[in-house]
This record gives sequence, structure tokens and C-alpha cells, in this order.
Amino acid sequence: LENTDAVAAVVKLCREHGLFLIPQGGNTGLVLGSSSTEPASVILSLERLNSVGPIDPVGKTVRVESGVVLDQLQSALADLNLTLPLHLGSGGSAQIGGLISTNAGGCHAFRHGMMADQVLGLEVVLPDGKIWNGNRALIKDNAGYALRRLFCGAEGSLGVVTSATLRLIHKPADLQTMLLACDSVSDALSILSLCESAAGSLLNAAEFIDRVGLELLKRHQPHVQQALDDIPNVALLIELASPSNLVPLGPIVESILESAMDQSLASDGVIANNEQQRQTMWTLRESIPEGQRLHGAQLKHDIAIPVASLAEFLEKATQAVLTVLPTALVNPFGHLADGNVHFNLSAPAGQDESLIKNQQALNSAVYDTVVQFEGSIAAEHGLGRSKVRLADSSRSVIERTLMKSIKRSIDPDGRMNPDVILAATDAVPNQRD
Amino acid sequence: LENTDAVAAVVKLCREHGLFLIPQGGNTGLVLGSSSTEPASVILSLERLNSVGPIDPVGKTVRVESGVVLDQLQSALADLNLTLPLHLGSGGSAQIGGLISTNAGGCHAFRHGMMADQVLGLEVVLPDGKIWNGNRALIKDNAGYALRRLFCGAEGSLGVVTSATLRLIHKPADLQTMLLACDSVSDALSILSLCESAAGSLLNAAEFIDRVGLELLKRHQPHVQQALDDIPNVALLIELASPSNLVPLGPIVESILESAMDQSLASDGVIANNEQQRQTMWTLRESIPEGQRLHGAQLKHDIAIPVASLAEFLEKATQAVLTVLPTALVNPFGHLADGNVHFNLSAPAGQDESLIKNQQALNSAVYDTVVQFEGSIAAEHGLGRSKVRLADSSRSVIERTLMKSIKRSIDPDGRMNPDVILAATDAVPNQRD
Repeated sequence: LENTDAVAAVVKLCREHGLFLIPQGGNTGLVLGSSSTEPASVILSLERLNSVGPIDPVGKTVRVESGVVLDQLQSALADLNLTLPLHLGSGGSAQIGGLISTNAGGCHAFRHGMMADQVLGLEVVLPDGKIWNGNRALIKDNAGYALRRLFCGAEGSLGVVTSATLRLIHKPADLQTMLLACDSVSDALSILSLCESAAGSLLNAAEFIDRVGLELLKRHQPHVQQALDDIPNVALLIELASPSNLVPLGPIVESILESAMDQSLASDGVIANNEQQRQTMWTLRESIPEGQRLHGAQLKHDIAIPVASLAEFLEKATQAVLTVLPTALVNPFGHLADGNVHFNLSAPAGQDESLIKNQQALNSAVYDTVVQFEGSIAAEHGLGRSKVRLADSSRSVIERTLMKSIKRSIDPDGRMNPDVILAATDAVPNQRD
Repeated sequence: LENTDAVAAVVKLCREHGLFLIPQGGNTGLVLGSSSTEPASVILSLERLNSVGPIDPVGKTVRVESGVVLDQLQSALADLNLTLPLHLGSGGSAQIGGLISTNAGGCHAFRHGMMADQVLGLEVVLPDGKIWNGNRALIKDNAGYALRRLFCGAEGSLGVVTSATLRLIHKPADLQTMLLACDSVSDALSILSLCESAAGSLLNAAEFIDRVGLELLKRHQPHVQQALDDIPNVALLIELASPSNLVPLGPIVESILESAMDQSLASDGVIANNEQQRQTMWTLRESIPEGQRLHGAQLKHDIAIPVASLAEFLEKATQAVLTVLPTALVNPFGHLADGNVHFNLSAPAGQDESLIKNQQALNSAVYDTVVQFEGSIAAEHGLGRSKVRLADSSRSVIERTLMKSIKRSIDPDGRMNPDVILAATDAVPNQRD
């Protein structure tokens, strides 16, 4: 498939032959959003819709097709000193269409918003094969319902996103990155407050890593540099971005480190002196999932909690997990400033069986605590097929019914990516009412 | 009506008695969104749903009811050094529910987004009287469709917004404001580029005013200070905001002014030396609509154009207007950085008749040019009742049909604010299909 018309033709063909249609991006998802066990289904690859441009350097926008890989887009933008403010571990394979359809998050979401917030316009092939061209390049457009927002994060269940117009920012004039050793997430949150006083909107990332993750990494990927002398309870990566050459970051980053040490919120801290040292810190952060994967079986939970309650949540959720399985290794890490935690569990070496056996009780322990703290059971990875029942049980019937109404109104036959977000049996009514 | 349950009871009663329901906020709208000529309709005031809080200073969020006036909210936040990054002329009367339902814009939208972008959670009374409690305080929440985004900007046509959880920012540590005299909008756009190089995300506002608006103001409100020595072709208000005491703005604002003068992009410029001078500049900008109103009849157009095409659009649209009515006074002003122009027309004194007689042709001249430039016919004021036909004729049938499907799925009887966004006859099908 090389263009939107070809996608539209396939959608129409599937419809005529009663086939289900599953759009697939870079296939980096973690919730089974782009695969299916449904027999009569077609998986739609968009990788040949891969053109970038035109780029508008004045309006700071770019038109981009769905099959473009994130890193490919960033390379094309770099020459013009522009960037899409979205950073995540899978940038080398994740495609724009998938990033839009899952409303991807990442490290900068607390400052720049999620993928949906970068989308000014969209082109979508609808379930009936018609093409909606809403590919506008406008920040302000209130001519009706927020259709473009609705398709972002819809996981392909309302249509196939074929291209988009994205909002860009200038590349930061400078980045200053440091790694701090903290005793607790609570201290890390206090450092976050220091950052907000000293740097405000210049704060570009605030990532935390638990000791468990650092130790698993040391064991399974000893070549990854840990940057700090000793493994702390919590490592905190802080990055500031400068909006211009007239705003030097050195004094700000130093003042934050000094305050954190003075107030005993950090016992150690290193400021990256060059790009290589900065990359070392980011590699440490981004290797955490791989370190845990190499250890063996794991249960992943992509959740978000209001930032003010984060420390208390982590304590309660860890307790709940250990009550089920006292030997569990609890490895929370992620995006401190928006409360998005990857609350991942492993077992001690050789005890994977214990984790798998208790899988259901462990998941309940985590998600029940999330609901109790008014958090999200699906923060940045979406619902896919794996979290639909969880959403049914933890979100209100009214909310789920609203979603069903919307699904039925746009895809009345339930042909688009069935079983994601809503159970297929819910999405297609037995009889119209 | 004092709480959400009372609103729900009224919605149910209206439904039982076959009445239409029109939610009304501060009634500052310009597109007839909250008034009706429909006989069997109830206008719902939310002004007694006016509680603010709790405020979370760590997560920087606030829960607020729909009847709260924007300025009232800002006062409550100021004590905690917080602010909602939304600034518009009607802050003294506009209510939160109306700001959400119209997805209000204003001066900071290019930097902080529109009202919808500040909304983390919502509580909505649905057309069937049920209450959807989606009042979460999370930046990342991908557990299904973006319902909260759909209700923002829906102008009350999908339900009644009763309360919201909004995202806040710290009040800027410093503001530096200046007024520049430019020959043309094209020069003003070049200064905007200078600002982006020198200040990047510290740019807080970039408002432009045409000579016509400044002269009408001088004539009808001579007490309003003009700040610049002579009335320029285009006055440009530039404001920078500092994220912390460690980022001094003085050198940046001076460097922008110097570059603008050196490059002959500005012939004059004044930097506000104190808060009073700053207020003088903002009063000038915000008095423009009143100056024009006092002059007599006017035709208003709230439109947006991709920034890169703005200067060319203004030239073409002005030509098109003068072709219809050579004596027309064309007064474009507004938000330079997001291309949102209030393209308002008047007639010379005593010739109001000529404007009114040519109303339809003048509107077409403006909106046809907007469509030609791929702009928005409704940038920050919404469609209301006055722009529904315009939307039907200038947006694609596929787009309008999608909106109808959504309206029917959530409000199948078409009882909620009929005739806004979509014609009531379109929203309610004669027979279900």
C-alpha cells in the first residue's frame, strides 16, 4: 500500500468481504493492539506510506505519512533545527501512525503534552472506506467537534490514520543533564519542586529509577555504565533545555544540585560535562526495561498517579504486591513529573513460576491500588486487547457506554480493529436500539 | 441550581417534558451559542455552581465548578503563586463551563494551548441525565477514547459540563513587555522570528493591531493611551515570561528590540518599565474591540490562517473586501503567533447602511479567502448558531457527517443545545438508520 487511496480501496474490499481490519505500525506496542487471533482479519501495514514533508519552518509544522519511523522524522527535522517534542525508547521502530493511534507519551509529556497534543491535523480512512481530510495546520480551529482528538488514541478502532500535520518546536539551544542519588521517591519529588522553582518550564525531563532496576541491570548488562559511584535507592535523571543562547543553563543546573545536596535530598550527583556523558545517563535510564527482561518472567503495569500521591502510592502498591508474593522484585521506574510509573514485577532468579502462578492476584494488587488513588490503569501504552476487561471493571459503566456509543456511530459493523479498547461483543449491538 | 445532582434532575425533567436545554455560561459568546429562539427551551444557568478547590500545589491542578468566573479562579490561585495560562478580554465575566464548552483561546494559546489543553478531567451531565464522572487529575490517561477532549468545544450540544480538573502553571517570575511600531504584518512576522531565536518558549504573547483599529480607538476612546509616539501601520505587543528568578529577561527583551530596529523591522519601540506601563500596553490591545464597537456597525470574523501565509492572506482578504465595498474599514488584529485574526469590518462614519447592505458579499469575500488559504472559519469563538451554515458549506460533507454521527450517538433526541455546531434538522434523523 503506497498511498491513501490504496488504503481506502483495501478498507472497502475488507468491508465487502466481511473481513476485520487491523492497522499495524512499528509493532512496538505492549498491549496487543495490532495483532489478532480473529480468523477473518487482515493486518494492514502502512510502512510504505513513508513520505515526510512539506516542512513549514515558519509555522513550525510538518506533514508526515503514517508509516514514517519516529527517528526518520527527527533526522529530517534536525537539518532545519526543528524537533518533534516526543522522546521514547522505541523511536527506532515506532511509526507515526502508531504513535498517534496509541497517543504515545514518553519523557517530555509533562512539558509538551502527549502525541495527541502535537497533532494539528489528520487524514483518516473511515470504516466505510471514505477519506476524511482534516489535515489542517492550525493551532486554533473550533469549527465543530474535536475530531482529530478523537482519532488520536483510538488504536485504529475508528479508522486508519494515513497522514498527519504535526506541530514542532525549535531544537533546544542547550541541554544540561544530571543524575542524582536519592534515598526515596519522596526526596526525588522534593528535588522536582526545587527544579520547578529554579527552572520552571526549562525542565525537560525528570526520570526516576528504583534500586531494583539498577541492580537487575548491573547483573544482566554489566557493560551499561551506572554513572553514580554506588547504586542508590532511587536514581533521578534531571534534564533542562534552554530556549535560546541567551539563557545559559549552567548556573541553574548547579544551583539545583547544590540545593538538593544542602537539603540532604540527594547524597550524590553528577552533571554531564559533554554529550557523551549525557548519552550515558540516558542509556542507563533506557536500558532498565531490557535489564529486567533479561532476568526472566515479568508482569508489566503502565500506570499513572496524581504526582502529589506518588510516593504514598508506591509504598501501598509495593505492600499489596508483597502480601501476595513476599519474594517479588518490585521495579517501579518512569516519568516522575507526570506520575507515569512502569510498575514492573519480577521474581528472584529461578522462581519465575511463583510470579506466573500468582499473576492474577498480583495484577489485582497493583490495579486495585491504582483505582484507590484515582490513577490510570493505562497511562501511555493504551488498552489494546489485553486491558479491555480491566477497563470494563475499573472504569464506570457510564464511561464505557459512552465509548461504545461512539464506536458504534463511526464503525457500526465493528470491522475496525475489533476487540481493542472495547470488547467486540460490546461494540457491535445485537440489534440496533 | 446548586450542584451536579440538581443539574441532572433538570436535564431529566426537560427530557420527560420534551423541552430543549441550553446551558449558559457568562454569556460573553459572539456566535449565539447560548441563546435560542426555540419556543420549548430551558436556559440553564450554572452560576451557582461556583466552588473552587481543592487546589493541589504539587501536582499543579485545581478542581473547579462550571459557574466560576475566570478572574475569580485566577484570584484564588494567585495566593499559591499559580495561574491558569488562559488570558482573554472577557475574564471578568466568562465562566469556566463556557470556556471549556467553547474551547476558548486567547493570547497564550500558541504557547500553552487552548482551554481544552488545560482540562485534565471533566464531570458532565449527559443528555439522559446520567452523570459521567471523568474528573481525573492525570496528564497521562489512555484508557479508551479521549472523551474529555470531545466535550471540550462541544458547545453544550453533548451534555452539560458541571465541573473540571484543570492543569495550572507557576506564575511567571517576571514579565517583560514591549510595544513596537512596524510598517507591515510581514515585518511583525520577522520580529516574531527574532523572538523565537532569542526567547523561544519564553515568548508569552505576540499581539498585533492594525492602524485602522488604533485610529478608531483614538477617535472614540481618546483617553486610552497609545504608548507609541505616532500611530504605526501595525503595532506589535511582545511579552516574555520568565520561568524563574535565575532567568533574567532584561537582556533578552533588549536584544530583540535592538535587532528589530537594526534590521529596520521596527521604526519605534517602547519597553514597559513597570507594571503600570505594562498594563497600559495591554489596555491598548484590549480596547480595540470597544473602539470599533463605538464607531458603529461592524462585521466580525474570528478566523485562523497558517502563520507562514498570514501576511499574504491579509493582503488578499483586504483586496476581496474592498472589491465589494471600496470604502470599507478593514481592522485586522489578534494573535500573531497562532495566526488567529479578528478580521473585523466597519464603514466610514455615517455609512453603516453600506456595510449592512453588503453583509453577505463581505462575509463571503472574507471566508472564501480563508478557505483558499486552508484556514479556519471559526478559530476561538466556535460555531454557535451563527456559523452552522458556513461550516456546512466550507467544510467537507464527510467531516460534517462524522460530527452528526457523534451528536446522534450521544444525544439521539437532539435535546441538548439544538442548532449549535450542527443544524437541529441534521442532528436528529427522521428515521434511525
